[in-house]
Amino acid sequence: MSQYDLGITCDMHVHLRDGKMMELVTPTVRQGGVSVCYVMPNLVPPITTIEQAVEYKKQLEALSPTTTFLMSFYLHKDLTPELVAKAADEKVIRGIKCYPAGVTTNSSAGVDPNDFTPFYPVFEVMQDKGLILNLHGEKPPSDDDDIHVLNAEVKFLPALAKLHKDFPKLKIILEHCTTKEAIETIREINKGKNAHEITVGATITAHHLWLIIDNWAGNPINFCKPVAKLPQDRSALVEAATSGEPWFFFGSDSAPHPIETKARHEGCCAGVYTQLHAIGYVAEVFDKQGKLDNLKSFVSTNPLAFYEITEDQVKSKDTVLLVKNANEVPKVLGNSGEINVVPFKAGQSLNWSVEWK
Amino acid sequence: MSQYDLGITCDMHVHLRDGKMMELVTPTVRQGGVSVCYVMPNLVPPITTIEQAVEYKKQLEALSPTTTFLMSFYLHKDLTPELVAKAADEKVIRGIKCYPAGVTTNSSAGVDPNDFTPFYPVFEVMQDKGLILNLHGEKPPSDDDDIHVLNAEVKFLPALAKLHKDFPKLKIILEHCTTKEAIETIREINKGKNAHEITVGATITAHHLWLIIDNWAGNPINFCKPVAKLPQDRSALVEAATSGEPWFFFGSDSAPHPIETKARHEGCCAGVYTQLHAIGYVAEVFDKQGKLDNLKSFVSTNPLAFYEITEDQVKSKDTVLLVKNANEVPKVLGNSGEINVVPFKAGQSLNWSVEWK
Repeated sequence: MSQYDLGITCDMHVHLRDGKMMELVTPTVRQGGVSVCYVMPNLVPPITTIEQAVEYKKQLEALSPTTTFLMSFYLHKDLTPELVAKAADEKVIRGIKCYPAGVTTNSSAGVDPNDFTPFYPVFEVMQDKGLILNLHGEKPPSDDDDIHVLNAEVKFLPALAKLHKDFPKLKIILEHCTTKEAIETIREINKGKNAHEITVGATITAHHLWLIIDNWAGNPINFCKPVAKLPQDRSALVEAATSGEPWFFFGSDSAPHPIETKARHEGCCAGVYTQLHAIGYVAEVFDKQGKLDNLKSFVSTNPLAFYEITEDQVKSKDTVLLVKNANEVPKVLGNSGEINVVPFKAGQSLNWSVEWK
Repeated sequence: MSQYDLGITCDMHVHLRDGKMMELVTPTVRQGGVSVCYVMPNLVPPITTIEQAVEYKKQLEALSPTTTFLMSFYLHKDLTPELVAKAADEKVIRGIKCYPAGVTTNSSAGVDPNDFTPFYPVFEVMQDKGLILNLHGEKPPSDDDDIHVLNAEVKFLPALAKLHKDFPKLKIILEHCTTKEAIETIREINKGKNAHEITVGATITAHHLWLIIDNWAGNPINFCKPVAKLPQDRSALVEAATSGEPWFFFGSDSAPHPIETKARHEGCCAGVYTQLHAIGYVAEVFDKQGKLDNLKSFVSTNPLAFYEITEDQVKSKDTVLLVKNANEVPKVLGNSGEINVVPFKAGQSLNWSVEWK
């Protein structure tokens, strides 16, 4: 078959930034084949008030009126249970993102993942109101505790299991998971559960379906956090993404950075920009596995179900048709010369493109 | 004690390049506290003839008359046993460096480390003549064989063991070793041997005593091949270097690159430049371990013995005094604006400096 109806497509982890960068990348959500997206709150300052979230959403909708933007708060000590309850009741946010302090871009205001108990009152409200907790699942690096970029996610998994045990009805997502062990943990938690009982899921990015450590060693464009790991990890991610299992779904973690912050000898920013061809990158991996029939589960059915998104919440009823059609990734995505972003697989050709119906 | 006599110091793995870069870095061998150095042959084109080696040495000596330069050939299919015998007899080279094809800077002319047998006639001659075989001990990356930057050295170790078995009297050095497994292999090979029976050794760099994967993830200045590995690997290297065992000695693999080839979004060059403070970087690690008494073994006694360097072969009888004295690493090492190299730990202060006596 050379066409696949993907329905209403979702990308449950997008970085749309602000200012000129926001203007550049926000329209590429739809261009990349995505209808519904879940927007990360790690601006400077982070999104922690109703006013900020409402204003940010308004700006995004002005840039792409047919895209559905689901908003989030940044988990922070200033977030009160009352504020979270109000934001949920007013349907301003769909969830709250938790960044461990210091692990990735704009995470300096993050929390200490060795002790989530200060946030338990907030988690109680989230559980009651049906908000989603999105976890950047890495322990911060530590010489004393032998934590480094390769094992930071695996070392975090017990904290995920404990949160689930303490809040069994709280919907939790392990974002951008990168390891075989993370995949196994998600399956273990969900073993024997019916679809409506699932409260713990995981997003998988496009680039982690492609990359291993060799691809970012010495290559700033492919460098992100969590870092891409070993071949067996990539294999586990590909197997999980293409499995159709309802707890795995798409979150690109597309993270644009200006080219000059990538080409820096003294340290380059972490993040891979994939938004402009989000569905195309993923489709090619599914195709190679002979699993294109499961792509709709990964990018549409599963995320819509986990996020409990009803059709009336979606701004455009347009659906996506995946078409076998050569698709060139530009060498750079530019904004009138002011901001330039180098996309993942820049200058390469993909086999699949998207059409809106 | 705040002074240590290090004797005639050695760095058995230096990259001095050619042209303007050679002019910039060659004097820094002595400035960094090194008297005798073993010069890598991976120029473009590589050093594979007597004429090239003689001419290269002449250029280096003109730039630093008091430094002893030991020259090497680049292992290559064009190297005949006759040529190698002649180069040994005329004392033009001290050894031959073997690069697996494609693993690091200027290694495209390298060999296939899955099969060294085409080079066995050359190794026979080297063994007879007492030349040293210097191995870049990594298997090339391979998806099919599950070889990546983290395990490439460990996957190479059986090839080292086999070479030693087939040529028990050939002196072999595993260059810039980076893993716990490599350290264990070197010890296993040498178990129960007397000093004069040692034929297999390993060099350890300055930067691998400091770095782990987190330090080069997103930091081009700290990116080199073999890549720095995990905390337990660094611990094993530090323990081995400071142990005083005769089969471990210093080879900095100082590898200068112009700053613009480090600050490149599409891929940066592999190599850490350490020459200007070579002894200082190492001394600080030994000091932290309370092992400064063993530093002379690592940088002088062990390499002089393994390379069988007699005093009459050393151009200057000057010895190095290590002095406790703050020592600033410049932010950049420049050549009249033409070439700029960012050193390891640029802008930081070291605790030890060197004086020539």
